[in-house]
Amino acid sequence: MSDDRDSPERPAGEPPTVPAAIDRPIRQDPPATDRSVLDDAIAERDAVGFVAVGNRHDADLRFLTRFAAEDNYAYVRTSEESVLCAPSGHVARATRQFDGRVASDRLGSHPGERAAAVLEEVPGESSAGPQTVLVPPSIPHDAVVYLERAGYELRSTTAVADARATKTDGEIDAVRAVQRAAGRAVDRAERVLSAADQGGDSELQWNDAPLTPERLRRIANAELGCHGVDSAANTAVVAGAAGDEATGAEPIYTDEPIRIDVAPRGPHGYHGFRSRTVVVDSDGGWDRRAYVAVEAALEAALDEVEPGADAADLRREADAELAAFGFDTTGGREAGGSDPIEPGHGVGLSRRERPFLRAGETLEVGTVLAVAPGLTDPAHGSVRVGDLVVVTETGYEVVGDGRRSFTPRG
Amino acid sequence: MSDDRDSPERPAGEPPTVPAAIDRPIRQDPPATDRSVLDDAIAERDAVGFVAVGNRHDADLRFLTRFAAEDNYAYVRTSEESVLCAPSGHVARATRQFDGRVASDRLGSHPGERAAAVLEEVPGESSAGPQTVLVPPSIPHDAVVYLERAGYELRSTTAVADARATKTDGEIDAVRAVQRAAGRAVDRAERVLSAADQGGDSELQWNDAPLTPERLRRIANAELGCHGVDSAANTAVVAGAAGDEATGAEPIYTDEPIRIDVAPRGPHGYHGFRSRTVVVDSDGGWDRRAYVAVEAALEAALDEVEPGADAADLRREADAELAAFGFDTTGGREAGGSDPIEPGHGVGLSRRERPFLRAGETLEVGTVLAVAPGLTDPAHGSVRVGDLVVVTETGYEVVGDGRRSFTPRG
Repeated sequence: MSDDRDSPERPAGEPPTVPAAIDRPIRQDPPATDRSVLDDAIAERDAVGFVAVGNRHDADLRFLTRFAAEDNYAYVRTSEESVLCAPSGHVARATRQFDGRVASDRLGSHPGERAAAVLEEVPGESSAGPQTVLVPPSIPHDAVVYLERAGYELRSTTAVADARATKTDGEIDAVRAVQRAAGRAVDRAERVLSAADQGGDSELQWNDAPLTPERLRRIANAELGCHGVDSAANTAVVAGAAGDEATGAEPIYTDEPIRIDVAPRGPHGYHGFRSRTVVVDSDGGWDRRAYVAVEAALEAALDEVEPGADAADLRREADAELAAFGFDTTGGREAGGSDPIEPGHGVGLSRRERPFLRAGETLEVGTVLAVAPGLTDPAHGSVRVGDLVVVTETGYEVVGDGRRSFTPRG
Repeated sequence: MSDDRDSPERPAGEPPTVPAAIDRPIRQDPPATDRSVLDDAIAERDAVGFVAVGNRHDADLRFLTRFAAEDNYAYVRTSEESVLCAPSGHVARATRQFDGRVASDRLGSHPGERAAAVLEEVPGESSAGPQTVLVPPSIPHDAVVYLERAGYELRSTTAVADARATKTDGEIDAVRAVQRAAGRAVDRAERVLSAADQGGDSELQWNDAPLTPERLRRIANAELGCHGVDSAANTAVVAGAAGDEATGAEPIYTDEPIRIDVAPRGPHGYHGFRSRTVVVDSDGGWDRRAYVAVEAALEAALDEVEPGADAADLRREADAELAAFGFDTTGGREAGGSDPIEPGHGVGLSRRERPFLRAGETLEVGTVLAVAPGLTDPAHGSVRVGDLVVVTETGYEVVGDGRRSFTPRG
C-alpha cells in the first residue's frame, strides 16, 4: 500500500480523513414530493396547468422533479400528468430519476417552448378566452415569452415555495443526513484547534506550519467531502477582528474568537447548518462576555420555537437578550461597518429560505430552521452559535447532537 | 497533538490529505471585468441602461459584480456608473467587494424595484416614448414586471454571455488555479486505486474495506476541499457497466473501467475540468479498445483547436475517429439507453457554457474549452478522457499537466 506521507506537500502527522466505513446508506432515495398543492392551485385559478423553468440551482424545480442538471429544463403539471422536459443529453437519466413522463428533447429548443408544446397536448374545452397557466414569480422571462406567444395567459403562484416551507419526514431525514456531516466537519476543526501548538506571539501552529482560517476552512471542507456532502461554497472561518476584510491567510491567535460556519449540501440538495465560535485560550474579555450573551440569545430564541409561533419573535427575543447583556446590536453594527448577523432562517433545498424571521411568517410542525444569533465587534471579532432545529408538536428538536463549547473540544 | 487515527470510523492507514503548505496565494483578487461591452450595447440600442437580477448561481451577475450572495440582487449599468443593489444584510461586504456604487438596501423590497429606482436617478432628456432598458434574456420575470411598471421598455441582450465566452488573462489564471486542484483530486483517486488490494472475486479493497465508487468520489472531494476548491456536486465516479443506475455502493472490480470526472469551482466561481478512465488490471478487451479509440478521438478533436475554428468540427472529428475504430456512437447510445457523452463545451463561471460544440460557434484566442470525448457501452461501462484547453494564437495549450494513463498512476 502506498503512503504519500513523505511527499513535500503532504507533511507528516495530519490525521486521516477518509473513513472506510460508511455509516449510512450512501444514496438513499430522494424524498417524495406531494404535488397536490399544484393541483389545488390549478383548480382554484381554473388554469390549464403549471410550468416551472430553471436549472439545478432552482430549489422549486429540484423539489418538483428530484432531478438536477446544469442546463435549463422545464417541469409541466397538467390535470393529466407531470412532465419533465429534460435537457438534451440527459433524457436517459431523467427517465430513470423522474417519476412522471419525460418529454423527448430537441437540441437547441428552449424549455419554455417545449413546455408550451406539452400544454398544447392537453385536451381542452374550446373556451372563450386564452387559457391560464400558473408559473413561479421568478420564472425566466424568456420562458414567459414562449408561453405567451403560444397564447397562454400567465398568473404567478407561490404554491411551491409555500409548500417547501414545511418539510415532510422524508425531507427531514435528508436534512438529518447532511447535518451529521456538518457536525463532523465542525468537530474536526475543533479537534485541530484543540491539538494545535502555540507558536511565537501566541500564533497557532499545526503540523509545523501556521494554522490560518483558510487552512481550517479547507480542513472542514475535506471532512465534508469525506462524509459525502458538498461544502457548497458555504463554509466560512473568521478569526479575530479581521472580519469581512480577512483574506484567510492571517495567523490565528490563541486568545481570539474563531467563528466556524458550515452549511453543506447533501446528495439530494438539502442543506445542513452549524455555527460555532471557540477561543483556544480566552483572556475572559469581550469574547467571553459575547459568548455568554450569544448563548443566552440562542436559548431565548429557541424558547419561542413551537407550532404557531411568529418567526419575528425569535429575532426579537434574541436581540432583547443581547441588549440585556449590554450589547446594542443595532448601534454596534452601524458603527463597525460590519453586516449584521442574521439570527435565523428556514433551511432546505435553499441554504436560506422561508420562513424568514420577520412578521407574518409562522412556524409549523415540520419547519426546519437555522437558529444562530451572533455579535460582531470591529475591535474583537465575531461570535455566533447555533444549530438546525425542526419544529415538532411539542416545541422543537435540535437536528444533530447540538453539543457546543467555548473551548475547542479535542 | 491529538491523533484520531484510532477512532472507529477512521481506520488506520489513510494517507493524510490536508497539506500544511499552501502553494499559491490563498485568495487572489478576483479577475477584473471589462464592462465596456455593455456600454456598446447600451449605445447601440439607444438605451438608458442595463439591468441584471439573480443570485450567486447566475454567472452573468457574478461576472459583472464579482459578488456572490444566496439572495437575489441587482446590477445596474447606466452611462454614469455601475450600481449593485445588494441584498439586505450584505451591504458592508458588497461595499468592500464591488468596484462601483452600492445602493443602500431596503428590507423586503424586490431587486427589480430597486433597480428601477436606480434608473430613475439617471438624468434623461424628456424623450417622446418610454425609455429602453437592456436585460439578459433569462432575467427573472418578476423583475421585468417591476421595470415595466416603472415605465421602461425592455429589450434583451446576450452581450454579457457573449463577452464571457472569451476569457481574459485574469480569468484564465483563475481557471488555472482551480484546475491544479482538479488534477490533484484525480491523481489522489488514481493513487488509491493503484495502491488498493485485490480481495476475493477481484474486488478492490482499501484499508481493509471495499473500495466503492462512492468512497472514491469522497476521497476525490476531500482532496478538492484540501486544495481550497469546491466539488460543486460535479464529481462523478462510475465503475463498470452499472452506468446511470449505479448507486455508488457496488464494489469496484480490477478488470473494469473506472471513470472519474471532476469539475470543481474555485473561490471566484471559475470551474476546472478533468476526466480520466483507468483500469487496474485490464484483460485487454472492450475497455482497452475503447480507451485507444477515445484517446485518438481526443487528439483528433484537439487537432481542430485554433482561433477561428468552427466548434462543431471538434465533435465531428472526434465522432469520425471513434467510428474509424469501429465504435458507432449513435447506434450504441440509442441501443444502450445511456445518455451520449458530450465531447466538449466551454467552461468558466458556468460549468458548461458557450462555446458549445455546434455549428456557428467559433473558437477565439481566450476560449476555455473542456475537450473530452467518450464511449458508453451497457455491457462494459464508460470510457472518457479529457482536459481543459485554452485557445492561443498558435493553437491551444492544455491547462494543467495533462498527464493521462490507462493504468492508475501510483
